[in-house]
Amino acid sequence: MNIALLQINPTAGDLRGNAALLSTAAQAAAARGADLAVSPELALAGYPPHDLLLSADFVTRSWTQIDLLARELADGPPTLIGLPELHPSNDGRPLFNTVALIRGGRIEQRIRSARIPADTALDESRYFEPFHGTQTIDIAGRRVGISFCADRWNDRNPHDPIEALARDKAQVIVALAASPFACGKHALREQRLADLARRHQVPLVYVNQFGGNDDLVFDGRSCGFSAAGAPIARGASFDADVVLCDITRTEPIGAPTDLDAESELWSALVLGTRDYARKCGFGSAVLGLSGGIDSALVAAIAVEALGPSHVLGVMMPSPYSSRGSVDDSAALAATLGIDTLTLPIEDAMTAMDRTLAAAFAGTARDVTEENLQARIRGTLLMALSNKRGSLLLTTGNKSELAVGYCTLYGDMAGGLAVIADVPKTMVYRVARWVNATRGTLIPESILTKAPSAELRPNQTDQDSLPPYDLLDDILQRHIERHESADTIVAAGFDPHTVHRVLRLVRHAEFKRKQAAPGLQVTTRAFGAGWRMPIAAKYEP
Amino acid sequence: MNIALLQINPTAGDLRGNAALLSTAAQAAAARGADLAVSPELALAGYPPHDLLLSADFVTRSWTQIDLLARELADGPPTLIGLPELHPSNDGRPLFNTVALIRGGRIEQRIRSARIPADTALDESRYFEPFHGTQTIDIAGRRVGISFCADRWNDRNPHDPIEALARDKAQVIVALAASPFACGKHALREQRLADLARRHQVPLVYVNQFGGNDDLVFDGRSCGFSAAGAPIARGASFDADVVLCDITRTEPIGAPTDLDAESELWSALVLGTRDYARKCGFGSAVLGLSGGIDSALVAAIAVEALGPSHVLGVMMPSPYSSRGSVDDSAALAATLGIDTLTLPIEDAMTAMDRTLAAAFAGTARDVTEENLQARIRGTLLMALSNKRGSLLLTTGNKSELAVGYCTLYGDMAGGLAVIADVPKTMVYRVARWVNATRGTLIPESILTKAPSAELRPNQTDQDSLPPYDLLDDILQRHIERHESADTIVAAGFDPHTVHRVLRLVRHAEFKRKQAAPGLQVTTRAFGAGWRMPIAAKYEP
Repeated sequence: MNIALLQINPTAGDLRGNAALLSTAAQAAAARGADLAVSPELALAGYPPHDLLLSADFVTRSWTQIDLLARELADGPPTLIGLPELHPSNDGRPLFNTVALIRGGRIEQRIRSARIPADTALDESRYFEPFHGTQTIDIAGRRVGISFCADRWNDRNPHDPIEALARDKAQVIVALAASPFACGKHALREQRLADLARRHQVPLVYVNQFGGNDDLVFDGRSCGFSAAGAPIARGASFDADVVLCDITRTEPIGAPTDLDAESELWSALVLGTRDYARKCGFGSAVLGLSGGIDSALVAAIAVEALGPSHVLGVMMPSPYSSRGSVDDSAALAATLGIDTLTLPIEDAMTAMDRTLAAAFAGTARDVTEENLQARIRGTLLMALSNKRGSLLLTTGNKSELAVGYCTLYGDMAGGLAVIADVPKTMVYRVARWVNATRGTLIPESILTKAPSAELRPNQTDQDSLPPYDLLDDILQRHIERHESADTIVAAGFDPHTVHRVLRLVRHAEFKRKQAAPGLQVTTRAFGAGWRMPIAAKYEP
Repeated sequence: MNIALLQINPTAGDLRGNAALLSTAAQAAAARGADLAVSPELALAGYPPHDLLLSADFVTRSWTQIDLLARELADGPPTLIGLPELHPSNDGRPLFNTVALIRGGRIEQRIRSARIPADTALDESRYFEPFHGTQTIDIAGRRVGISFCADRWNDRNPHDPIEALARDKAQVIVALAASPFACGKHALREQRLADLARRHQVPLVYVNQFGGNDDLVFDGRSCGFSAAGAPIARGASFDADVVLCDITRTEPIGAPTDLDAESELWSALVLGTRDYARKCGFGSAVLGLSGGIDSALVAAIAVEALGPSHVLGVMMPSPYSSRGSVDDSAALAATLGIDTLTLPIEDAMTAMDRTLAAAFAGTARDVTEENLQARIRGTLLMALSNKRGSLLLTTGNKSELAVGYCTLYGDMAGGLAVIADVPKTMVYRVARWVNATRGTLIPESILTKAPSAELRPNQTDQDSLPPYDLLDDILQRHIERHESADTIVAAGFDPHTVHRVLRLVRHAEFKRKQAAPGLQVTTRAFGAGWRMPIAAKYEP
């Protein structure tokens, strides 16, 4: 029995476009002799549809669209398509998270998710209600069990998503998923899926979407496992694919070869940037080049995502900028092959100072004047973005965003925060990996100089922050592993440093609340995964 | 039997502070002869605690705190306190939403919520799991049933939150709540609670917190109902109270007298502004005065919340500003008794134009130049905010924010968006109410002039937008009532206008994603109540 995994790149809300992608993929599957084709979870709606699900009209139109799709694919193999379904009672809500089986030109069966997970990108429980009905269908003489988002049940959750299907004598498990990328997650995912197949002695296929949708990136990598838990099929990473999986195969394929962190991150960031621009209708991007590592890496990502002729780098030197910063940016632009503009900000700084002179009379210079420089730059970049219709990419990293080492409406300005979930130490690792695998795109001097915001003379990041390797370690423990100050100190870190860092994190909440969407690449990004009150009083 | 409703104003995360508020209130209740004292929901944690709940340390410390509180209140009446509880299995998550009964210096019993609602301000299902155990306690010879958030089950939800308690022979129902204010909600809430009491023929008391926490405002108005459904007790609106409710009382008290929309909104916005400033540690506020109605109303709110000597109004005229705008702002500042600064922006505009001249050579003037003015103003205001340590209040209304008639990092800049959930037509209504009830604080000319952003010569809002009464009607249908374009057109609106407005709403998503927290005063505010994808393709 051949099951085709339709690894498509849907767009939230684009019912017609998503149906077209599914149709093309299903027809390819038919041509290759598939006995069953399977879409990712909620594929027709485009995951994650968020509050579009609160519109009854949206859900209704999904069913109009799937009727058309069923007729279009009437001659093809039976196909499973994920979409939201109105509740038959009340006024349609809460919804069901449903999979429609289309066969012979019509909807033959509806399978509804029996579990609504908490703590996911979509907040499923905001929209869906569990439904306790049959989760199996019969295809080509085999009983097929349908699982929703099988990898979301981690080891902490005692529930086994396949157990009930196995009890119902399913002979193969089909898991529809829309599982956001996080660095290192795919290795665990394959292990988890293999364990489930082996435990229940049943072949299992897993269909994941790929592509970027706002802050989420999906890595595809749909896969199949034999009843013995051996990998027997695997889809492309971060790309479209129609994967044909012969579920009777027992001979294992090789392990994935692209699981190193730098390579995964690079692919995710490029795809996330490309799709955000494309799905928002931008053909070009603009970004500030400071001479530092962050903007250099984002420029390289933008070039890979959009092509060098669609990226503009802007140098905005101030009297505090070093000569090296401008030279390094120019050298970077030359190796990347992008256009640049140089807009010195001294004139605007002087005008602002003059405008505020009376109001600031008698006060000392402080962070206000540093923020003014950053905000003049943000304003200039937004003006270029507005005038050219280009997407402004903001270049701050996760370490900065965590401790508030960034200026709201200044360097935080932009439509997409490309590396907002990449810690500074990882920014360096990915940059070095880029240079090692793609030729020296990023000048060595950018990689070796001390990081500096250059907002006052001779400033470096390390004047106000602990060394980045130490900082990133503390941040990862606190953010991703939920460790409190006491726990981190008990692990051997300096108490003063730990408390200072966590206090900085707390006090930067108001900035992050207004941050641009940032591509999520860890298990816990700022944004939907980090929901902290601002007006709070708690020392973590 | 006297039940004391401890209507306090907790702060998220402030375990010690919240315990102190509860202690003071419980002691007042004891002095007045209460047989039982009851806190709002999750009162010790401070609702909504959001992702503080993901910290096991935070939950553990809550229990340390309640042990101290129990000992402190050892001589007082039995007291019910809401707080989160670690799951005994796994690593503590998901949590239980728990109420601890403290009596005689110790925790005597734990009652856990059996239902975790979806679609609330806190996303309860992200943190909590239902627990099916007893929901009753025995106090003074009476069986008391504990209900969590009884008003969250609306008519659409078939579940009756009191039914199981009535079956368990509860002789009185105690409902712990933290129910955010929305205009018009309290009248429905009292009706709903009265219905529940009457249906089950059991007295019911409802304890709600008051105060502002980030974007949410809580109105207090804790209340009690006889078994016949008559109102028998009611707490203060938008203020602290310890309400003693004799549940044997049958004679009704009067209906609430402060339910008119303008009065409710004014109180909510003042309290929300005051608490956001206080809980974030700001003693003063700054805002731009444009001469328009929005900034005039926000200034009046700020003065009521913080006192005139703690509010600074800033006029930032451009060459496009009318003389009337500056004069009206000066007159407003005079009636409000606040200081002003005048910072003309022409100098900064010229510097920006000069800086961008080469880059913009050969292009026509467009919205870019309008945004530049707004962003220069935003930058000046943030500089004042930074230098003076004042909270910048942003003054945009809900209608503007809906259709994107506002500039990101410009007039949208600020720490708190005071009227971001107030439609323009309601801004006028509240402003007129202020003048009618508090003397003419807002000059009549501000109320009568045509609204204008004054970003180009002779511009008015109505050049680009439908009349505000029409716009607000369409917006309310779409945002609060989830109506699609087809439904709104079917109700008699011009199809072209409806489609244009909903398209504007869709295309402003990227701006709202970076908006300042806005005080929520309707049933659906932008922010946590409106979660739309940006990179989406859907015509509503």
